[in-house]
Amino acid sequence: MRLTCTISDPASWRTSVLRNPNMEKLKKGYLFPEIGIKHEEHLKKYPHAKVISLGIGDTTEPIPKIVTSAMAEYALALSTPEGYQGYGPEKGHKNLRKAIADKVYSGMGIKESEVFISDGAQCDIARLQMLFGSNVTIAVQDPTFPGYVDNGVIMGQTGKADDGGKYAGIEYMRCAPENAFFPDLSRVRRTDVIFFCSPNNPTGHVASREQLRQLVDFARRNGSIVVFDSAYSSYVSACSGAPRSIYEIPGAREVAIEVSSFSKFAGFTGVRLGWAVVPDELLYSDGSPVARDFDRIVCTCFNGASSIAQAGGLACLSEEGSAAIQGVIGVYKENARVLVETFESLGKEVHGGANSPYVWVRFPGRRSWDVFAEILEKTHVITVPGSGFGPGGEGFIRVSAFGSKDRVLEACERLKSFLA
Amino acid sequence: MRLTCTISDPASWRTSVLRNPNMEKLKKGYLFPEIGIKHEEHLKKYPHAKVISLGIGDTTEPIPKIVTSAMAEYALALSTPEGYQGYGPEKGHKNLRKAIADKVYSGMGIKESEVFISDGAQCDIARLQMLFGSNVTIAVQDPTFPGYVDNGVIMGQTGKADDGGKYAGIEYMRCAPENAFFPDLSRVRRTDVIFFCSPNNPTGHVASREQLRQLVDFARRNGSIVVFDSAYSSYVSACSGAPRSIYEIPGAREVAIEVSSFSKFAGFTGVRLGWAVVPDELLYSDGSPVARDFDRIVCTCFNGASSIAQAGGLACLSEEGSAAIQGVIGVYKENARVLVETFESLGKEVHGGANSPYVWVRFPGRRSWDVFAEILEKTHVITVPGSGFGPGGEGFIRVSAFGSKDRVLEACERLKSFLA
Repeated sequence: MRLTCTISDPASWRTSVLRNPNMEKLKKGYLFPEIGIKHEEHLKKYPHAKVISLGIGDTTEPIPKIVTSAMAEYALALSTPEGYQGYGPEKGHKNLRKAIADKVYSGMGIKESEVFISDGAQCDIARLQMLFGSNVTIAVQDPTFPGYVDNGVIMGQTGKADDGGKYAGIEYMRCAPENAFFPDLSRVRRTDVIFFCSPNNPTGHVASREQLRQLVDFARRNGSIVVFDSAYSSYVSACSGAPRSIYEIPGAREVAIEVSSFSKFAGFTGVRLGWAVVPDELLYSDGSPVARDFDRIVCTCFNGASSIAQAGGLACLSEEGSAAIQGVIGVYKENARVLVETFESLGKEVHGGANSPYVWVRFPGRRSWDVFAEILEKTHVITVPGSGFGPGGEGFIRVSAFGSKDRVLEACERLKSFLA
Repeated sequence: MRLTCTISDPASWRTSVLRNPNMEKLKKGYLFPEIGIKHEEHLKKYPHAKVISLGIGDTTEPIPKIVTSAMAEYALALSTPEGYQGYGPEKGHKNLRKAIADKVYSGMGIKESEVFISDGAQCDIARLQMLFGSNVTIAVQDPTFPGYVDNGVIMGQTGKADDGGKYAGIEYMRCAPENAFFPDLSRVRRTDVIFFCSPNNPTGHVASREQLRQLVDFARRNGSIVVFDSAYSSYVSACSGAPRSIYEIPGAREVAIEVSSFSKFAGFTGVRLGWAVVPDELLYSDGSPVARDFDRIVCTCFNGASSIAQAGGLACLSEEGSAAIQGVIGVYKENARVLVETFESLGKEVHGGANSPYVWVRFPGRRSWDVFAEILEKTHVITVPGSGFGPGGEGFIRVSAFGSKDRVLEACERLKSFLA
């Protein structure tokens, strides 16, 4: 058989494949690339502007040498017969899983076999949504990291979005200064899955022990699964007394998955490394373990995190590595303190920053995207409009503390002269 | 509110969340981890056996120094203010995308912007299946890499599997020695998506130019999308005249996506790096570009491949890197030649090996898993049962040429004395 069809005008050719209706439901672009586009447009308009990005939560400080040396050493060994390794276990190298279980979850009874290494928390959220499938109902904090909702939309868990940006079928749990950033659970509808991020992105609020007790209790009473996102847990100040992990709460093992990441902890945003914990006791209604199905997802849809990144992760958890990383986190926490101080000195209502790299600033009666645009236009500082994190974020902007000290200080000066 | 519920017996506690019915449809374990389990069981039974794995297609030869040095250098630079980089573009570093477009697709008109860098072809297959969603119909070669089918099952594209292992709703295109490993397309039902792997895993058959012309013609006539998996294209011998990319075929840009990988090309099975090409001309029936939705998936469900791996990928595509990698591929191709010769000398019907690292051996009238078990028991050599790749693989085993020359030669000696 010969190619007999005429190749038609490329501009008019179409397949007969229907576009995935779930993709149609999604708002135009994912929030962070949209911010990137605004950034580029601004640079075109002001080619000589010294733009400072306190927008996308992107780390800026170098990774401690002890960590990069471990990665370099691992990479170079791949050129030797003794050091070469091909596929690792899909769920990650055992020594790294063990280090996470022993050090991150010290005293919480997490086993190495319950830790699944990944290429980042965002990717794990996508895989968890694949695991749950289209028939589950979900609840999210409002505002929150948009990945939970967007991945739920892609999987078909929702209807269309209304004019306010809320997708039909999702339970939005309003978290605002008025309720100490924690929902009144007596008014929250039961869902199969509850996504909960603490310290929260974008509000910077860390849930207290009592709040997390309520959350676990609520999940247990409803037979729900909590997906607890602790990607920012390393920013929790010891003096806050707030838990860094959901597994500090009694009863969490039967109801909670935790996702976390080396991105904001060790500057691995580009290196890509994270993990999920799925305890053995977490069971579906038919008694089958959630971990077994998640393992199947990890083996089928993923093939393990980069072995070089895993070598770096292991170095992060060594005594020397941990100490060095604390120094980097200290830089960002100091930036956050300065940002809070700046906005407070201007009489603004400010939240977050103390246990989080994010500062959440209120602009009463104004639309987030307008504030974002005005700050960018007048100060060349990129922020993130709060409404990008859900309708509950309207009227706020998120300011990221990721940046060098100098640049954050300069941004503060510009903001002061603009807002004063 | 206090935690009031009694923490019940962990063994009896269950959430009320229904297990995803699509996960229930999946056969017990993903093929390759299942082989790994058999391997471990064998080691327990024979702790002193010198097991040789020609099973999972895992690379064994060191990565050329020029490539690992580039990765080590990139990693070390992450410790410096000048060299530190956080998040890269979700679809990958521009220089790597450009190198792939220019070098892998030289003369085929692929643009840098059409290349999406990933953490491997298997992960891209999962993301493509998320992109397509639950309403599409799919066709696969039979036998083929199990990831296409399993990810389709997870997404809800299929019914249950029958006793023969075929999922309801999937079009299985039988590819056997009797039809030159290419289906009679006049008897293939139209589907939205056609997954096609060449050189094929597991049969090792590379599709001829004429076969691929027929495939593209078939897709064009039916308005289907071809997902062409070229993960083994670097094993295609120049003298075969077979295309290494679907884009060598006129008319493919309007109907085909290509996924590929550095895994088997450059020994990156553990490093994790691959790519997908989604041409601008590929449109859904509503005229919207498939690439736009795929970009949304990549931004929402993924966050880019490890930057260190990307630095390695770039080095692979340099002149010196390419030459070094050809040397490694030569080792595996020589192994494949020796394996083919071994089975032929034993009077076996053997396929593949010439343009692929896989050798496909027929055992008429026997069940693949029985042959697999017998070979393992008697020779301590791991293979893969053909039926793991689909019902059409029954009666065959796949033997991988990935291994050091010495180990492959020893495996051949053992197979000779066993099969003689």
